[in-house]
Amino acid sequence: MIKHISPTELAHYERLYRARLINSLSGYKSANLIGTTDKNGNHNLTIVSSVFHLGADPALVGMIIRPQTPKHHSLDNLETTGWYTINQVNSDIIERAHQTSASYPKDESEFLAVGLTPEFSAPCPAPLVKESRLKFSVQLQSAQELAINGTHLIIGLIHDIFVDSAAVQEDGYIDIEALDSVAVTGLDSYHLGQRITRLSYAKPNLPLMRLNTDGTPSA
Amino acid sequence: MIKHISPTELAHYERLYRARLINSLSGYKSANLIGTTDKNGNHNLTIVSSVFHLGADPALVGMIIRPQTPKHHSLDNLETTGWYTINQVNSDIIERAHQTSASYPKDESEFLAVGLTPEFSAPCPAPLVKESRLKFSVQLQSAQELAINGTHLIIGLIHDIFVDSAAVQEDGYIDIEALDSVAVTGLDSYHLGQRITRLSYAKPNLPLMRLNTDGTPSA
Repeated sequence: MIKHISPTELAHYERLYRARLINSLSGYKSANLIGTTDKNGNHNLTIVSSVFHLGADPALVGMIIRPQTPKHHSLDNLETTGWYTINQVNSDIIERAHQTSASYPKDESEFLAVGLTPEFSAPCPAPLVKESRLKFSVQLQSAQELAINGTHLIIGLIHDIFVDSAAVQEDGYIDIEALDSVAVTGLDSYHLGQRITRLSYAKPNLPLMRLNTDGTPSA
Repeated sequence: MIKHISPTELAHYERLYRARLINSLSGYKSANLIGTTDKNGNHNLTIVSSVFHLGADPALVGMIIRPQTPKHHSLDNLETTGWYTINQVNSDIIERAHQTSASYPKDESEFLAVGLTPEFSAPCPAPLVKESRLKFSVQLQSAQELAINGTHLIIGLIHDIFVDSAAVQEDGYIDIEALDSVAVTGLDSYHLGQRITRLSYAKPNLPLMRLNTDGTPSA
């Protein structure tokens, strides 16, 4: 049975109920840890589900940050240093990753608090997460407040990439299922992926082909 | 073994290889069909993997559109009418959804071409997708060209929501796994979700609890 939620009903929902519902509407979301460092060398790590692809050439990545939440020292930090890191969350570290969303004081490292390991790749001063199997350093290009609700759109240029080499396919596709990368739904639900198929490039009046993980046609 | 891809290496990759690789970096992406209509009543439907949550109150949703690709009549249409629809892709319709990425002429309806069914909910003139199990009409709030690469950031207000009622949990969370909603990785890979767990709200020095799908603590 189809449930219809009108704008009036939506407006009357309790705050957290609405947050869980609206956060479910956009579908599966990426789970990434954002690493930053402040001008005194304190590290910050926070999970976000708002990282999105923006372009391949130049290689750009976007994310949305809510600066009003106390945990987002990351915004200050990345604006100060001009750098941050993005680290895919895998199923071995979901609890530690989720725990970074707690509001730790600015001088307390979430790495220490939750039990993850910082590692570095010059020239980026922000820490990568050793336990992540796909991660990259990012050079800030722009940080813009969105007038509509005060969130910030952060755009960065992808710099150095580190990935478990077994996952990189012949055609450039990275098999993130093989890395046990996870997706988020709603505010707090974590999921593994289960591949259905890859599909060939679509053209009008041409049947699609199912492809194997490595990009070759399926039998 | 960890593969390190430096900015220099990345710059020398072949165009499509780089596109597949960079599109894999952000992690699991939502799969949604965007429905629009032009001023003559022609319908357009196109799959995007760039829809993201922007805020719950007001209920806002963002997406990135590349207007340089011919298929994006949707940008013209949603700017003209001020409305569009977002429809989650489920595993029953991945081929038809993927096929909407082909470059059909502006006056050819992708609904007809791929075999999906338009349906309507006033006051939104844009078509919803009958075969989708979670969909909503959206009122355009802003469309902004991002100077950095010419993509467009589209922000909309969520209007009427239609969802299979069995998937809506007591606490507002929507179990999109139960809807067989799919995620995308890279340019062309489709995945079902496989829930690991929901996790309780994180606070410093408080152990996390695993939660059932309905939000109650796991035994």
